[in-house]
Amino acid sequence: MVEVAEVFERDRWAEAELVYGTTDVAHPGVARVLGAPRRAVAGPVQALVEPLGGPVGARALTPAQTRGVFAERGWGTVVGFQTRNPVHRAHEYLMKCALEMADGLLLHPLVGPTKDGDVPAEVRMAAYEAVLGYFPADRVVLATLVAPMRYAGPREAVLHALVRKNYGCTHFIVGRDHAGVGSYYGPFQAQDLLASLPAEELGIVPLRFDNAFWCRRCGAMATAKTCPHPPAEHVALSGTQVRAMLAAGQPPPPEFSRAEVAQLLLDAYQR
Amino acid sequence: MVEVAEVFERDRWAEAELVYGTTDVAHPGVARVLGAPRRAVAGPVQALVEPLGGPVGARALTPAQTRGVFAERGWGTVVGFQTRNPVHRAHEYLMKCALEMADGLLLHPLVGPTKDGDVPAEVRMAAYEAVLGYFPADRVVLATLVAPMRYAGPREAVLHALVRKNYGCTHFIVGRDHAGVGSYYGPFQAQDLLASLPAEELGIVPLRFDNAFWCRRCGAMATAKTCPHPPAEHVALSGTQVRAMLAAGQPPPPEFSRAEVAQLLLDAYQR
Repeated sequence: MVEVAEVFERDRWAEAELVYGTTDVAHPGVARVLGAPRRAVAGPVQALVEPLGGPVGARALTPAQTRGVFAERGWGTVVGFQTRNPVHRAHEYLMKCALEMADGLLLHPLVGPTKDGDVPAEVRMAAYEAVLGYFPADRVVLATLVAPMRYAGPREAVLHALVRKNYGCTHFIVGRDHAGVGSYYGPFQAQDLLASLPAEELGIVPLRFDNAFWCRRCGAMATAKTCPHPPAEHVALSGTQVRAMLAAGQPPPPEFSRAEVAQLLLDAYQR
Repeated sequence: MVEVAEVFERDRWAEAELVYGTTDVAHPGVARVLGAPRRAVAGPVQALVEPLGGPVGARALTPAQTRGVFAERGWGTVVGFQTRNPVHRAHEYLMKCALEMADGLLLHPLVGPTKDGDVPAEVRMAAYEAVLGYFPADRVVLATLVAPMRYAGPREAVLHALVRKNYGCTHFIVGRDHAGVGSYYGPFQAQDLLASLPAEELGIVPLRFDNAFWCRRCGAMATAKTCPHPPAEHVALSGTQVRAMLAAGQPPPPEFSRAEVAQLLLDAYQR
């Protein structure tokens, strides 16, 4: 609820260009900005939206609440992980690599509006709960971030990092093409933008990661930085490939997804 | 070669107490100090010892040389790994976790005098070369540190970190009971000492790790921080157990050692 102090006209084209680096309406973030009313209101916020219900809402903690949990647990360093997708073994690997060097992990999925084709938040929540079974309970907090996904790539990566700082994280995982969509942004553009910002202004340490996969020769999860073997040895599936498998009633292999997650996704696709 | 400017008497007992926190002669570092002549010389160093020969010497780079290699490769962040043991999968896992977030890795085994029962440097060098086969060649440098092992635990961990800073590393892996021996030091005493030092004075970022193992349920390497499963699911062997297996002509399992490393150790034990 906003107490209206001002009514103004947005320059939606300029806004799209500045935030997304493009005015291409095929970009879901650009479409969202250009599709919004031209007229906007501003003023002091009196109340925020009502909390979500169900399993998604049950995990919606405020920044004060997550900070409280971290303090209770005595965590000096906390790594934040943003996702809008189910957690597969690749994401679990990145989170665990970072957790090895930190006190705790905040698994912090975004559960606001996402684009068509993304897995619904309710299905993802069940999958996140299942993945918790592969972490010590005293080292991870699962909480939801109720916010829309903007697909703004580098600039959204900075926003994602700052938001996690507010939630009490000291470190933030930045993946390949973080918050990207299509081929609007380079694979390491988000990591480079974050690295270019003064550490004391950012106030949260970005941890850069490449895409992970299972390597049969290594007998381990790895990335191109830690595995010397050819792609033929790697178990890696694109989002498109996973969706095709699920649509055909076939679960992704255990090297790609935990069996519990694969089953939940399969059930959701068969509905 | 030292130009003698001063001859003085060391207080070896006080030195042992200050460096090792004990004067117990069963401690190999204490024994080394107490066994050294009481009289010592000091003065400007004119020449250092002659370089080592063989495969160990071939990998002996000076700090200027490692810094040169890092600069050539354009590495902004380099993780240093100290070891006096063969590299098993647990160490490979810690190194790869750290490497995922850095540009490069310096595998920097200490090859000076070590205590009885430690694996000889020549055998270890062959094992390190074998382990390189599990890393992308452009992400790792193997170089030797010609220095005695002191087994001074926390204080030696600080020395190890500072030495690696001199070699051009920005980050340094600190394991459980780093540089410890017997039960003279607590498992996290070295990590706590490093964490207590002001970051700007230390000048290198310590990365704290727990002991790693293969977990059958996770299907992955992990530590107590990242795996919730009971010890019965873990493949972990003590140094004593590994030595007993090797003495019996039995290679450690592939979850513990890379096959190439297991074979090299087996050959060395059968000689």
